[in-house]
Amino acid sequence: MKIDGVSYRSVWVDREDGWSVRIFDQTRLPWAIEILRLVDEDQAAQAIRSMQTRGAPLIGAVAAYGVALAMRRDASTARLDHVVEMLGKTRPTAINLHWALQRIRAALHNLPAADRVAAAYAEAAAICDDDVETCRKIGEHGLPLLQEIAGRKGRVNVLTHCNAGWLATVDYGTALSPIFQAHDLGLDVHVWVDETRPRNQGAALTAFELGKHGVRHTVVADNAGGHLMQHGKVDICIVGTDRVTRQGDVANKIGTYLKALAARDNGVPFWVALPHSTLDMQVRDGVAEIPIEERADAEVTDLTGRTADGRIETIRVVAEGSPAANPAFDVTPSRLVTGLITERGRTEASEAGIAALYPEKV
Amino acid sequence: MKIDGVSYRSVWVDREDGWSVRIFDQTRLPWAIEILRLVDEDQAAQAIRSMQTRGAPLIGAVAAYGVALAMRRDASTARLDHVVEMLGKTRPTAINLHWALQRIRAALHNLPAADRVAAAYAEAAAICDDDVETCRKIGEHGLPLLQEIAGRKGRVNVLTHCNAGWLATVDYGTALSPIFQAHDLGLDVHVWVDETRPRNQGAALTAFELGKHGVRHTVVADNAGGHLMQHGKVDICIVGTDRVTRQGDVANKIGTYLKALAARDNGVPFWVALPHSTLDMQVRDGVAEIPIEERADAEVTDLTGRTADGRIETIRVVAEGSPAANPAFDVTPSRLVTGLITERGRTEASEAGIAALYPEKV
Repeated sequence: MKIDGVSYRSVWVDREDGWSVRIFDQTRLPWAIEILRLVDEDQAAQAIRSMQTRGAPLIGAVAAYGVALAMRRDASTARLDHVVEMLGKTRPTAINLHWALQRIRAALHNLPAADRVAAAYAEAAAICDDDVETCRKIGEHGLPLLQEIAGRKGRVNVLTHCNAGWLATVDYGTALSPIFQAHDLGLDVHVWVDETRPRNQGAALTAFELGKHGVRHTVVADNAGGHLMQHGKVDICIVGTDRVTRQGDVANKIGTYLKALAARDNGVPFWVALPHSTLDMQVRDGVAEIPIEERADAEVTDLTGRTADGRIETIRVVAEGSPAANPAFDVTPSRLVTGLITERGRTEASEAGIAALYPEKV
Repeated sequence: MKIDGVSYRSVWVDREDGWSVRIFDQTRLPWAIEILRLVDEDQAAQAIRSMQTRGAPLIGAVAAYGVALAMRRDASTARLDHVVEMLGKTRPTAINLHWALQRIRAALHNLPAADRVAAAYAEAAAICDDDVETCRKIGEHGLPLLQEIAGRKGRVNVLTHCNAGWLATVDYGTALSPIFQAHDLGLDVHVWVDETRPRNQGAALTAFELGKHGVRHTVVADNAGGHLMQHGKVDICIVGTDRVTRQGDVANKIGTYLKALAARDNGVPFWVALPHSTLDMQVRDGVAEIPIEERADAEVTDLTGRTADGRIETIRVVAEGSPAANPAFDVTPSRLVTGLITERGRTEASEAGIAALYPEKV
């Protein structure tokens, strides 16, 4: 995708040194476009933990590069196993992280140590390229949903929660991929962007991406979606996900479940966009089984943004002395999900629906 | 209620001059306890419009004092009618405002102009005293709900949205009144406080009130409530309201509807606390008929709070150039409301339920 006319992916190998790993510092967006340089696995882990890099598909790709960075210093099997385990613990909810780490581990495990550095970079690059192609196809398969509505109504109002755009993946995005494609084809698309408290990925990142791409959008408080749906102002909801279970339950950013409830109550289709790597066939009941990350209270109590005169400030917005809690994800039961949009097509959010597209996973 | 040991109401006549009207500047809470002095009806209107004073019952009381201030300069009938109309337009959704203005207008209308100033102050004071007594009784009638849960489980987890505490009324509050009473009786009450974007009345005001009163509470992003209910962490929801229709539909702060959906989906009782003055028997279908105030975009895009070194700063949290929308209320259909808690007792959110408590209104 482009920022001010320059093409970027959201993770890449430094073009000058040929080995260090570059990412955007997403905690600084949209106020500053700062590119970080990661030189070892600890920096990769810290970037994931601190959400300088985030989004379920993207953290898988960055973790794979973290393994490559680790192999440069010590390509032993013990080190490989250690770094895979260490990086796997950085975020508990997204399953893509584990998928990417297992993929790169499998690719390296039976190689002699001397070959592992080159193979690790090659595998991380392949994970990235696959993700780009996967997201492009998710866009293709989601596009007809928007075309159908536009054909009927002349325009499409989409509601999305959190950021499932190109900043959450290597390129294109998942939930936003059909939206970018629809816009590029000239459809009249407007996106309601949930602010997405507490970390405001909607207000900061999704709004930034849509704005940079020229897609019409309006930021709303997370509280507003139900009201908008009651009044016919949302034609379709599309969100990304951090993990989809065998029966089609969907873990995604906290608050997704509330929007799915409102969509069901108002007859608005609720679609979830995901790559194959987000499927977790080991888990059935998402509400009972998916671990939900509890993040720091300070993400709720404090906010960072820009003052009118251009300074970046962090302010407390909660009464002094009041504690906060910060569950980062929730699980939307499959009964509330209209369907899944994957790189292989659209399907029902159920075991049968998933098996129809991914027979090899069942 | 008390702040640091000193008793306050949320609106009062200045004790020294005997005529100007005092309110807290609620836009400065919890960072600063600043008391404003209102000397005419325009200042009263502006305080309501800017939400320096807010909360459905309280804006009715402040508007009544606004009429009293206006009468001091011109007690003509033309002026009375004009000021009632002007103050009635300051906020469109809360019905208590109109109720209070009609009450004071009726009290003054047939009096000679010379008697209207004294009568206006007396009527505004009566509106305040009635509100205090009403809220105390709402607490009494809500209390058994909390006692029943505490008796069964040893403790009670309540979720509330926005601020329906003493700062939203003249004293005690509506939704928080049973909570304060339960706490004072020694029940182990814990309150999940929805932050309540975009104006953060939960994080700023409800957390402040509960903290000052010593009630255990935890602030959460508005997005978190569904997840908390899925995991059995909420025993009961209690919210206030700005208008309840003939059939029991409930207008309240934007996002209330989403919590009512989650409560229904998880079998959590969802109660709405209100005084009689919040009933609007002229309206039946709340979703179709209640006007929903659209407030300024800046309330979504910008936030004010305190920096670590104690400065009050306003920051933008939405990507530059992205527009925002700000519907301030939504309507929860009566089918999602377990019941109403009023000063006359508890009842079903339906025409029959309301008629049983308020036969004179039907």
